[in-house]
Amino acid sequence: MSADAWANRVMNGDRAALSRAITLFESARSDDRLLADKILDHCMPKTGQALRLAVTGAPGVGKSTLIEALGQRSIAHGGSVAVLAVDPSSWRTGGSILGDKTRMPVLSVHDQAYVRPSPSAGSVGGIRRATHGAMLLCEAAGFDVVMIETVGAGQSEFAARHIVDIVLVLVLPNAGDELQGIKQGILEAADLVAVTKADQEAEDAAQLTLRQFRRALAASPARPKGIPVLACSAVTGSGIAGLWKSVKECEAARKRSGELKQNRNSQIKNIILEDSKTDLLDKLVKYCSEDPHLNKLQSDVIAGHISVRTATRTLVSRFLGTIDDKVE
Amino acid sequence: MSADAWANRVMNGDRAALSRAITLFESARSDDRLLADKILDHCMPKTGQALRLAVTGAPGVGKSTLIEALGQRSIAHGGSVAVLAVDPSSWRTGGSILGDKTRMPVLSVHDQAYVRPSPSAGSVGGIRRATHGAMLLCEAAGFDVVMIETVGAGQSEFAARHIVDIVLVLVLPNAGDELQGIKQGILEAADLVAVTKADQEAEDAAQLTLRQFRRALAASPARPKGIPVLACSAVTGSGIAGLWKSVKECEAARKRSGELKQNRNSQIKNIILEDSKTDLLDKLVKYCSEDPHLNKLQSDVIAGHISVRTATRTLVSRFLGTIDDKVE
Repeated sequence: MSADAWANRVMNGDRAALSRAITLFESARSDDRLLADKILDHCMPKTGQALRLAVTGAPGVGKSTLIEALGQRSIAHGGSVAVLAVDPSSWRTGGSILGDKTRMPVLSVHDQAYVRPSPSAGSVGGIRRATHGAMLLCEAAGFDVVMIETVGAGQSEFAARHIVDIVLVLVLPNAGDELQGIKQGILEAADLVAVTKADQEAEDAAQLTLRQFRRALAASPARPKGIPVLACSAVTGSGIAGLWKSVKECEAARKRSGELKQNRNSQIKNIILEDSKTDLLDKLVKYCSEDPHLNKLQSDVIAGHISVRTATRTLVSRFLGTIDDKVE
Repeated sequence: MSADAWANRVMNGDRAALSRAITLFESARSDDRLLADKILDHCMPKTGQALRLAVTGAPGVGKSTLIEALGQRSIAHGGSVAVLAVDPSSWRTGGSILGDKTRMPVLSVHDQAYVRPSPSAGSVGGIRRATHGAMLLCEAAGFDVVMIETVGAGQSEFAARHIVDIVLVLVLPNAGDELQGIKQGILEAADLVAVTKADQEAEDAAQLTLRQFRRALAASPARPKGIPVLACSAVTGSGIAGLWKSVKECEAARKRSGELKQNRNSQIKNIILEDSKTDLLDKLVKYCSEDPHLNKLQSDVIAGHISVRTATRTLVSRFLGTIDDKVE
């Protein structure tokens, strides 16, 4: 199938075509990824219309349950939702991988929703590159909301905030920042904070946590209105409607002010640079896997003929010098 | 000063020359790093004789205090010690940077010791590259032991285990794995575990933690003798002699079995590859900072003329195509 025809299927909402195109982005083969890029090129005019929402928080905070609840809320208002789950930990329990049906039972079978699990392997850069491509394809397929589920803020995790409009950070009731492994970076990136699992048993703890976070995230010069902090429970449903309303209000305010567009434009430069790094490292790794020079350089260092730094400089020079005929 | 003369000063134990050579490794300027590499080339014949020891653990576990105690123990046995501290968190308290005199009062002024703080900035790759270079220079300067103090195991931290012989992991008494943020990766890399701060007040907790870790790290097919777990207190001095003895026994056993040499040889390939990645990304970032194309590509994406992926491919091609006259 040509990239053109494939793109048309994606834009017509063909789920199988969408899934297979996303798989191309996740491929370790550079020709697969080139085809994915070509499909995306054709899809570009239909991208950019969705709300891009990251849902982040420590493992166990209830990200998928909340996404399931928010997604249903959005669909109830006439929307459609794509979910890209980039938290590998949430897909594994004792070594077995949980399917999306177990984690998001309603959304995974709903005809107004599309749930896509994480790429199971790859570098942080590779996962970011694939997730960004998948997000754009979901937009082209016509979804109104793309939610990205991720643990992360650190360099070791994919930081969704660099590709989304709004970051929703989830925290558990009755747990200090440190206990939850919430790094400062996550809270700095937060546009909205929700205290999850605020049901009857945890009501007091949730209220306490709510107050703590509200204090911590009160108005500052950088954030004159502060950051909304809400409590909710996906089990009882309390607070879900209010949380979704806050997300939509945040989106609407940023569209009005032009901030949403401006943020997307400034993200582009970062994405080009980060994707370039990932592409370049992929080429280097491919070069090293095909070329016997690395083993020879290792032997030379072991034998004491050259230092490890000279070996490194030699490898980089050879890679750059032979790039034209060796790579792609 | 020529690289040759500089290297001779380092090999003669000139501290000022050593410090300035390490600073060259940490420089953002590629010509500084090239000079550092040349100095190291001259020093290579004098490297490889030291014990390379990583001391890792969560912030607050007492890494510097224990290094101070172990270092003195080593010096008391006639040795000399270099300490490379790669944990930025331990150098900062409430915004101010603590000097090495505050953290390691004895070692920092001892004439058989050399304490070097962390590079304060840089990518993970850049810190790893600089630390590896610094370690080799310290060996060339004649230190018998090089200790590397680091938090890390994750991708977001510098993982010292890829450049050392022995990894000593520190854990607090009375704290489960999760509370201490000890990732599985750290324990997998451990050759020795020490429960710190096992003084009178925490005696019971320390004994409990000791038993927990001993159970967790008991003999397995991969580690037929298990991993030694010891309790110690840098304050009372209890357990320090035993811990240092265990470290030296571990080194001696590995030298006898050839494992130490084998491990170093297999590390070389990884170091060449990882340093090559770091060098390559440095070149790309330098290229982007000097070249106006990135801004133009961003504008083209914003205007809808090209996709972000096409922009990325264009940037990488231009970088690779113009590498000869643009970089170094």
